[in-house]
Amino acid sequence: MSSLFEQHRATLDSALAAIRERGFWTAYPEVPSGKIYGETAKQEGLASYEAHLNGDFELPGHPEQRRVGAEVSPLMAASGDGALGIRYPAADVDLLVEHSQAAAAAWANASVETRVGICLEILARLNRRSFEMANAVMHTSGQAFPMAFQAGGPHAQDRGLEALAYAWDEMQRIPASARWVKPQGKAGDIIMDKHWRIVPRGVSLLIGCQTFPTWNSYSGLFANLATGNTVIAKPHPAAILPMALTVLVAREVLAEQGLPPDVVLLAAEEPGEGQAKAFAEHAGVAQIDYTGSSHFGQWLRQHAATPLVYTEEAGVNSIVIAGTDNFDAMCQNIAFSLSLYSGQMCTAPQNLFVPRDGIMAGGERKSFDDVAAGIAAAVDGLLADPARAAAVAGAIANADTLARVAQARALGRIVRDSAPLDAAGAARTATPLIVAVDASDVEAYEAERFGPIALLVAVDDAADGVRRAADLARRKGAITAALYDTSEAGILDAADAFAEAGVNLSVNLLGGIYVNQSAAFSDFHVTGANPAGNACFADSAFVANRFRVVMWRRPAPASV
Amino acid sequence: MSSLFEQHRATLDSALAAIRERGFWTAYPEVPSGKIYGETAKQEGLASYEAHLNGDFELPGHPEQRRVGAEVSPLMAASGDGALGIRYPAADVDLLVEHSQAAAAAWANASVETRVGICLEILARLNRRSFEMANAVMHTSGQAFPMAFQAGGPHAQDRGLEALAYAWDEMQRIPASARWVKPQGKAGDIIMDKHWRIVPRGVSLLIGCQTFPTWNSYSGLFANLATGNTVIAKPHPAAILPMALTVLVAREVLAEQGLPPDVVLLAAEEPGEGQAKAFAEHAGVAQIDYTGSSHFGQWLRQHAATPLVYTEEAGVNSIVIAGTDNFDAMCQNIAFSLSLYSGQMCTAPQNLFVPRDGIMAGGERKSFDDVAAGIAAAVDGLLADPARAAAVAGAIANADTLARVAQARALGRIVRDSAPLDAAGAARTATPLIVAVDASDVEAYEAERFGPIALLVAVDDAADGVRRAADLARRKGAITAALYDTSEAGILDAADAFAEAGVNLSVNLLGGIYVNQSAAFSDFHVTGANPAGNACFADSAFVANRFRVVMWRRPAPASV
Repeated sequence: MSSLFEQHRATLDSALAAIRERGFWTAYPEVPSGKIYGETAKQEGLASYEAHLNGDFELPGHPEQRRVGAEVSPLMAASGDGALGIRYPAADVDLLVEHSQAAAAAWANASVETRVGICLEILARLNRRSFEMANAVMHTSGQAFPMAFQAGGPHAQDRGLEALAYAWDEMQRIPASARWVKPQGKAGDIIMDKHWRIVPRGVSLLIGCQTFPTWNSYSGLFANLATGNTVIAKPHPAAILPMALTVLVAREVLAEQGLPPDVVLLAAEEPGEGQAKAFAEHAGVAQIDYTGSSHFGQWLRQHAATPLVYTEEAGVNSIVIAGTDNFDAMCQNIAFSLSLYSGQMCTAPQNLFVPRDGIMAGGERKSFDDVAAGIAAAVDGLLADPARAAAVAGAIANADTLARVAQARALGRIVRDSAPLDAAGAARTATPLIVAVDASDVEAYEAERFGPIALLVAVDDAADGVRRAADLARRKGAITAALYDTSEAGILDAADAFAEAGVNLSVNLLGGIYVNQSAAFSDFHVTGANPAGNACFADSAFVANRFRVVMWRRPAPASV
Repeated sequence: MSSLFEQHRATLDSALAAIRERGFWTAYPEVPSGKIYGETAKQEGLASYEAHLNGDFELPGHPEQRRVGAEVSPLMAASGDGALGIRYPAADVDLLVEHSQAAAAAWANASVETRVGICLEILARLNRRSFEMANAVMHTSGQAFPMAFQAGGPHAQDRGLEALAYAWDEMQRIPASARWVKPQGKAGDIIMDKHWRIVPRGVSLLIGCQTFPTWNSYSGLFANLATGNTVIAKPHPAAILPMALTVLVAREVLAEQGLPPDVVLLAAEEPGEGQAKAFAEHAGVAQIDYTGSSHFGQWLRQHAATPLVYTEEAGVNSIVIAGTDNFDAMCQNIAFSLSLYSGQMCTAPQNLFVPRDGIMAGGERKSFDDVAAGIAAAVDGLLADPARAAAVAGAIANADTLARVAQARALGRIVRDSAPLDAAGAARTATPLIVAVDASDVEAYEAERFGPIALLVAVDDAADGVRRAADLARRKGAITAALYDTSEAGILDAADAFAEAGVNLSVNLLGGIYVNQSAAFSDFHVTGANPAGNACFADSAFVANRFRVVMWRRPAPASV
């Protein structure tokens, strides 16, 4: 039994209880407070981040054939001098796979307790570096600091722990041994001793995205490490630092425990190198976790050398507005969901289906245009204060998103135009564009338009909106859906429709909870039941096939 | 809560305990005894079977466009008049998928308890019809009666129950609802009520094999039914009756419980129709369970419309003989494994690796030829009594197997020739052919040679044998391996080598337990870790991805 395992056992036990109950629980505090993380943590985290800039990122003992790195902070991109200047060790696909394979036996042969203990220690150390990570995530994804801290730090760590708990839970249900005693009547018993062991799949590739470089990677990372697989983390070339820090921490803990650091490798690359494809085609890669576009997701599912591919791809999320008791609060809630990280979340709504004849809101009739104006005004209000606007909307990760916003202006009637948050500022920003279209303009709203783009779609009635939203989710994928409705029958019908389409539904959200939010240990993130992804972070199915069980058996000594 | 569920709850609970402990347990008695099944059960089962012959098999309400059926009993095949003459209702692929889809909503919306209760009742009724099933399996697979009863009846039922228990276990860990209470300090709590539901995958295709028409199908059948999927059972065209009886029983129970019988459909076809391919290419088929050749298995994994394909394919099983304390008992044990159902088991050994310079057996040196002669003599001894021979070896399911035996004679030196059990008998039979080859004759022993064909392979030493056997398993697949060795170090090394190759290993089997045997609730059948199959019957991974979980959530009344 590993001492790291014993040291962190209480955290694991709490996580195991949490994944059963799925109420609120978290292991890593989400508040970036000095009282929790230490009064100097914020300043030290910033200093640590800044020390990485314009220099070589060292990963002791990591395979290295060259140095790469071309990250640019979206928060400085408009100023023309946002280059982070960090140079990472890089190596060819074959060499990285070889190193990963060379580390495999030692990791596979480590006990489950040893592996899980090491994972828990990695998470604990990552948690202590949450401020450094927040800066790394902020300056690669463009998230504002509060979100970068939460989503990049404690929330990502929670997702990692959640997957770790599922992996432990599955593995501990396999007995190490059993005595099989088969009665044979007068012939006596046949007695066999059986021994089982967990056998990992092998080298596992972890393909990250730019917008949530850690949150979307930690479930796969810790599921794989716990189950004995080695991991090659291939971050998005525009967001390497968060996973480089993660790999650094993991390798430190591995080395301290006398295990090969190459159990966790970094595949850093320049933009456009396309290493993900080469890894996926490599016969030595046994599993792939992927977050990114549906286009490459489809390629991976069809062409990767291994069939074991877990994906979170894109989808088109919808809100259906049937009616509300609190029009202002509804508009404010939706405005926040549209503005948060400028719509660059896989959970952000894109389509807002509103009855053509309007809705009833607190006993009052609101026309389609009233609803449109209400939401637009709520966005304006939310973003009126520049400091708050920056803290909510952050920056645009990828310049392509600005082009999409520009194109989307032509889709229909502009209800609210997009603009930079601060035209003179250093950050690449864009506030939500809201365009009104009719339900007949299917091309306008059925395509995924990633970024601060919302389509207000005029439908016959709420049922028409639910039907269109659910049907779209079924065909194109969706990770979230939301409904505002005062009718219990309408709510239950929508729950059925969205369940059938494999989408998680949020109903009548007001106040400080948003459709975008997916909480570890409670919300199963992605259903795996529509094209937005073929797996869930995290559930039994996410972990149970990452290892196999092999037995040897022989007659028990007494029975030979 | 369904009364069927309550009625069978104790069986389920025992099964749940068994899959955790994996010692000996069985729900359905394997002894075809009148004391257990009723004194008239044997005669009634035979009569029921005979009543099906030369007539229409009725499945009330089943879609039917034509009648098909061309089964021939391998036990009568040599007499030229073994045709069963049973005509089954058959329909086109599209129509069957449509009927399955039409039944889907009612089944998906039935509670988990209702579905599991129905599955348990189906199993209980199948158990009561075990004698009828034994005759059906015997006269389609060619198994002798004792095996047809056990493998076709109670052992298959145990496998079905095992998968059912795993499915229940996974589903009951998803809470129906939870209250999520997130503290917000002075701002008070955010309180959400969350509701989860199990969403099935959809129409599931179950492609059976001729040799074990029920045993290899029940795990997938009950895993799918429990998790809310509808099932189209497509048996091998040479072994329809066992699954037709299964479908009949399932439909009876469904109808009695007010659910659509079309939840379970039969896809009967004439030999050569190739419906499996058409089903697999149908966009409406969401999952596939398959047992059969690696050739079609590979096609399915690559070309089926759905990626959710669970396979048991072929492999090359090996025994490595390093040494033994009991030469005679070893030879007898191996002889039985080679002879049982004439080697037509996915678990039957094909290659026997023996050191070129012989082995130590009970302190005595046995040359390679001594070992060969010992095993050959043991086969002769086992099959000397015609009644016992027939009861062990059964008949050859497919005439192609006889052709393979004939070809295999040319592979090397014949140690023991194959011959019909009874040249004048009605059954198509062939006793084990044993051919000696050298380890350098890789083409002779690396190919799968399904049937009563054994290759005695001369290797440098036991370690060479283990290395070759494990390497072959890794590349071509294997479901079982066996080792005879008196050295504990040799045993542990072999356990490591075969584990790495993903093969279950049996060591020093003597007496009444054989490498071929795979016991439900204890032996995980197929590891899924080498090309002999991509899944295991049954474990969490076998069931956890057959359903998805979808949520809806809203603010709790008190917190709005």
